[in-house]
Amino acid sequence: MTASTASAPGSLMLLGEHAVLHGRPALVCAVNRRIRVTLRPRADREVHIRSSLGRYAIAIDQLQPADPFRFVIAAVLRQKDRLDAGLDLEIESEFSHQVGLGSSAAVTVATTAALLAWIGEPAEPQTIFDESLTVVRQTQGLGSGADVAASVFGGIVAYRASPVDIRKLDGTHPLTVIYSGSKRPTVEVVKLVEAAHAAQPKAFDTIFSLMGWSADAAAEAIAHGDWQTVGELMNINQGLMDAIGVSNRVLSEIVYALRDDPGILGSKISGSGLGDCVIGLGRAKRTEWPQVVLPVEIAARGFEVE
Amino acid sequence: MTASTASAPGSLMLLGEHAVLHGRPALVCAVNRRIRVTLRPRADREVHIRSSLGRYAIAIDQLQPADPFRFVIAAVLRQKDRLDAGLDLEIESEFSHQVGLGSSAAVTVATTAALLAWIGEPAEPQTIFDESLTVVRQTQGLGSGADVAASVFGGIVAYRASPVDIRKLDGTHPLTVIYSGSKRPTVEVVKLVEAAHAAQPKAFDTIFSLMGWSADAAAEAIAHGDWQTVGELMNINQGLMDAIGVSNRVLSEIVYALRDDPGILGSKISGSGLGDCVIGLGRAKRTEWPQVVLPVEIAARGFEVE
Repeated sequence: MTASTASAPGSLMLLGEHAVLHGRPALVCAVNRRIRVTLRPRADREVHIRSSLGRYAIAIDQLQPADPFRFVIAAVLRQKDRLDAGLDLEIESEFSHQVGLGSSAAVTVATTAALLAWIGEPAEPQTIFDESLTVVRQTQGLGSGADVAASVFGGIVAYRASPVDIRKLDGTHPLTVIYSGSKRPTVEVVKLVEAAHAAQPKAFDTIFSLMGWSADAAAEAIAHGDWQTVGELMNINQGLMDAIGVSNRVLSEIVYALRDDPGILGSKISGSGLGDCVIGLGRAKRTEWPQVVLPVEIAARGFEVE
Repeated sequence: MTASTASAPGSLMLLGEHAVLHGRPALVCAVNRRIRVTLRPRADREVHIRSSLGRYAIAIDQLQPADPFRFVIAAVLRQKDRLDAGLDLEIESEFSHQVGLGSSAAVTVATTAALLAWIGEPAEPQTIFDESLTVVRQTQGLGSGADVAASVFGGIVAYRASPVDIRKLDGTHPLTVIYSGSKRPTVEVVKLVEAAHAAQPKAFDTIFSLMGWSADAAAEAIAHGDWQTVGELMNINQGLMDAIGVSNRVLSEIVYALRDDPGILGSKISGSGLGDCVIGLGRAKRTEWPQVVLPVEIAARGFEVE
């Protein structure tokens, strides 16, 4: 084989982010923006990585995680013992890594799938998931894996982290996704929530349980095509996100502006919060927004080896 | 006796509004703005009421609740059998009835205290409370009585509605109180919450429990002078108020603007929501606000017969 190419979709958390790190279920979906990784063997023993974020080259035996490619490099390192030559990796992304669409998980899944295809291992979703989750957790020190599951399996996924439980749901719905204009690293936000959790363990545990319960309730509503209820649950969850300290003035403004729109059934932060995106469930009738509207839809396709 | 005068303070909910209607504890405080009622017997059998809201006169035997004096009239009606003549009632208020400072409870308590003083009954706080709570509940069809308790007892009160449990707390703290610019009647907001509660009973019951727990936790923190924790609990509660649907864009903006202020330990809606005031715990360093800042402090004085 002279090359292998794999792609994986970005993802959005619909419900249960933060709670999923505490053992509760979450809802996550794949989106129609993908990251594609093309792998070509090299004659030497170097690894060359190229994307719109820059270029990076190093001898395979000296390979170490380095920004902006630490997820890609960690994915390569994980399969290193099975590689008998250097690699060119070319990465193309249909979305910015700055807008909170799970680019780390998507690029890890696409890289892992391209690597395993080149090694000649069958592209089993469960294997790609397990390998990718390990890479993500090693690299960022934490991670529920919900975004990895969406990038691997596509569609809407009901997800639990430990033990891992992945359930694909039937059904889809239009979304309106608005970028708040800034991003705060997930790990940073998770640490803030951990500190607040330590100060008020009882309140936070109860809120996490409620977030998890609502992810389950929303999964059931989706099974019945009851998107009205999913919208209500999103609104309740937005309050819970505010309660654990991950909303702010800009996010709240977008949340309430979306709720004023007759096309929207509910709205909340997507992701760890204190930045990133706000999701409105439905297609907003309003077309002019003071923020960037991301042209994103829920997509059924998970990772693919081309 | 030719006249009797009684006054009672307005009040602010600190924590647990809405939850208190579902049997959970709340924290409420009296403020340094009062309503004073002066009662003078008349030679005829008429009742004349006069305040900045207008004048009203009717034969005592035809007396029926009528706006804008329905709480005052209901308080008179409750003692009517013990009155042997008509009355002039003059009402002076140090605050607008439109800003969410519990004017209905305060005027009911002041009127009841003036009436009982004139009748010659000792001004027992528990009696004034019981009589006033009955009047408030009859008049508006619902009411936890937390505002009545604050108007009667003064200071900060930990309150439960059924069975009634009133506990005065030691300690006080500066507040910054900002009026959102609009008021939505409590009864209307309570009905909206009831409908949402019926749609998601499990989530709402859990949230009400959490609100109640946090009122208890705040009472304990106040007992230890730990106002930092009270601020944290207020922030958590604000998210819970958002979760039950009683926050909005304007209230959120004020909440977050207060939290940006270095003098503020926490901030939340005070009262039923969808309007009224936002409380910041502490004295804001910022002095210019785009909204009306109410010059209100927690006050130790409850009702008084002069």
